[in-house]
Amino acid sequence: MSYQKPFEKSEYEQRLIKVKQRMEAASFDLLICQDPASMGWLTGFDGWSFYTPQAVLVHLNEATPIWFGRAQDRKSAQITTDIPDNNLIGFSEPLVQHPSKHPFDELCDLVIARGWDSARIGVELDAHYYTARAHQHIVNGLPNATISDNHEIVNWARLVKSEAELVYMREAGRIVTDTMNKAISRLRPGVRQFEVIADVYHRQITGFDNKFGDYTSLCPLIQVGEGTSTPHLTWTDEPLPDSGLVVMEIGAARRHYHAPLTRTMHIGPAPDEIVRLTNVIVEGGNESLAIAKPGVTCEEVEAVWQSVLKRYGYSKESRVGYSIGLNYPPDWGERTASMRPGDTTELQAGMCFHFQSGIWLENFGAAVSEPFVVTENGGERLSDVARELIVIE
Amino acid sequence: MSYQKPFEKSEYEQRLIKVKQRMEAASFDLLICQDPASMGWLTGFDGWSFYTPQAVLVHLNEATPIWFGRAQDRKSAQITTDIPDNNLIGFSEPLVQHPSKHPFDELCDLVIARGWDSARIGVELDAHYYTARAHQHIVNGLPNATISDNHEIVNWARLVKSEAELVYMREAGRIVTDTMNKAISRLRPGVRQFEVIADVYHRQITGFDNKFGDYTSLCPLIQVGEGTSTPHLTWTDEPLPDSGLVVMEIGAARRHYHAPLTRTMHIGPAPDEIVRLTNVIVEGGNESLAIAKPGVTCEEVEAVWQSVLKRYGYSKESRVGYSIGLNYPPDWGERTASMRPGDTTELQAGMCFHFQSGIWLENFGAAVSEPFVVTENGGERLSDVARELIVIE
Repeated sequence: MSYQKPFEKSEYEQRLIKVKQRMEAASFDLLICQDPASMGWLTGFDGWSFYTPQAVLVHLNEATPIWFGRAQDRKSAQITTDIPDNNLIGFSEPLVQHPSKHPFDELCDLVIARGWDSARIGVELDAHYYTARAHQHIVNGLPNATISDNHEIVNWARLVKSEAELVYMREAGRIVTDTMNKAISRLRPGVRQFEVIADVYHRQITGFDNKFGDYTSLCPLIQVGEGTSTPHLTWTDEPLPDSGLVVMEIGAARRHYHAPLTRTMHIGPAPDEIVRLTNVIVEGGNESLAIAKPGVTCEEVEAVWQSVLKRYGYSKESRVGYSIGLNYPPDWGERTASMRPGDTTELQAGMCFHFQSGIWLENFGAAVSEPFVVTENGGERLSDVARELIVIE
Repeated sequence: MSYQKPFEKSEYEQRLIKVKQRMEAASFDLLICQDPASMGWLTGFDGWSFYTPQAVLVHLNEATPIWFGRAQDRKSAQITTDIPDNNLIGFSEPLVQHPSKHPFDELCDLVIARGWDSARIGVELDAHYYTARAHQHIVNGLPNATISDNHEIVNWARLVKSEAELVYMREAGRIVTDTMNKAISRLRPGVRQFEVIADVYHRQITGFDNKFGDYTSLCPLIQVGEGTSTPHLTWTDEPLPDSGLVVMEIGAARRHYHAPLTRTMHIGPAPDEIVRLTNVIVEGGNESLAIAKPGVTCEEVEAVWQSVLKRYGYSKESRVGYSIGLNYPPDWGERTASMRPGDTTELQAGMCFHFQSGIWLENFGAAVSEPFVVTENGGERLSDVARELIVIE
């Protein structure tokens, strides 16, 4: 069947080389990757099958990765990846959510059958779907192996984006720009929250020029009034008020590459306090992105942000940015570099971040966040929506 | 702020009583529940914050559950739950995705501060977001406790739905009916897959009579042509063909209660082979749901399904149904009762299932699945879309 893979085969070959170099440096023979983003980045594998145990295996001596998953999903791997058939391994159906057996029992059988039973194996100890139980079955099934946390080794390899990846990041940025502008245009007193969100979803998926959107790793978020003091509430049937604050955090995804964006709106004339807070956030973002150049560290960018806040008497404890890229629910962050004190990751051209400059106070909050890519000239924004408190007359 | 909680306080009190009875029977003093569905079912807590470690704690001697999560999400718990403020515990922001520390270090501090350090603790060893690393921090932080798998103790308590829950299940059924009919009406040669999906999302969220839809735990799935031989592919920009098979699996969610539904369509005149397969699936579903009454076991229902398949020379290895209800991504299944050999769970009135009667062959597949509730008269369908191979002229 005609399936348009997101990248050339050579792109995946380059990624595999990079990961194997990191494996050698970290003394791993074999990686077992369950994070759907790592699986997709390494092989192209795509499909909403990550609710059952599955993994991509990378061994130093194996030319291609191995896909391991539910038998009924093997065909998806055949369609979406270039992995040869003999490295597409489906596990037995009765193992799905079995009270005592686990699909990874068969993964252990596979590792042993390949002669890797005493390998130095790196697992993703903190990946969202790598459960404590899954790990127990790996540890019990491979008693001769040396099994340890690979500390997000593939996530770190994903950090600097290739030119081909940046194309998708910029396209996602364009979709999120259109989607946020659409959402803003829908905000009127009496319109119900879910009506705005229904349009957001439609716009996210429609994309532009047949460059459709994928599902995003977080759902669209909307907070109204006092709800703006916390960031992760979702929509209700409440009509928008005649006057009040609205914060929306929305993403868009092109071939699962994400551009997230937050904007703060006020229906009716805005109180000075909120205008002032939003202006500080915008100024903090501008100054921070201006220095986000190769060689600068993540914590140095955060320090610029804090200095702007301090100038005006504000503070924010949570990190002000994190790396983004290819991802699957429940998070579009890559769980690697964060803009916060102590993170000495040096920026490189091609790294992408969500500069999440939200401030949540006791009774309200505001955020004006941007997805950006690191360039020689500083952070280049991937989206283009008015950077100010947007007042809905 | 005005937030419409999905249930009365008394409903949550009843749930807590039920869970504590199960805890006593299983010899647990304390449960640590990270599954967002368990957290929501026990307390009403809602918000897309499950990408960071969080939990609801239930102790036999504590009148209310304890919510533990990221400090910035504490306000969400204040808004969406009835938990008193002193049982809403926010963890320190620097712990988010920290390379050596973990939010559950502070959860262990909390357990110790409450005097529960030598408790018999049940954890959700196989919940999607309970990572191997999270578990290590619990085990290391509570050396005097007895920590073991609670074997989905809360999921099992969720299995039989209350009348108040069934209201949402039926509303979700109505939304998914409307959504699938909308999707079917969009299927025409040349229409691109993503255009259908954009409308699906819009319809899912719009609901009816201001009874809006929530995000569903699986995204809408669409497979076309050979892609129908595997169940979890997502949409592309491919135009629908002049003639060919389309399978769609779509859910709808009311206050996170799910009704999933699958239908098989053929654009243009359908080959006899596909008509025949679909008829068998429908007949198998009819006969199975007819006997799905209280006292019948899950495996007995599956046996009826298999007998119909056998009558016509087909077989299907994967389970043909699983319990559904309140859920969050990545799965709307409850990970408890499954309709498959060996599952001797006795049906009770109020249990809800997704009868997933799909058959995936080498080069194509078909499915006509139903969400249903167990009643004295058999399985009552929650949705009402034509049960046949739907031919698009």
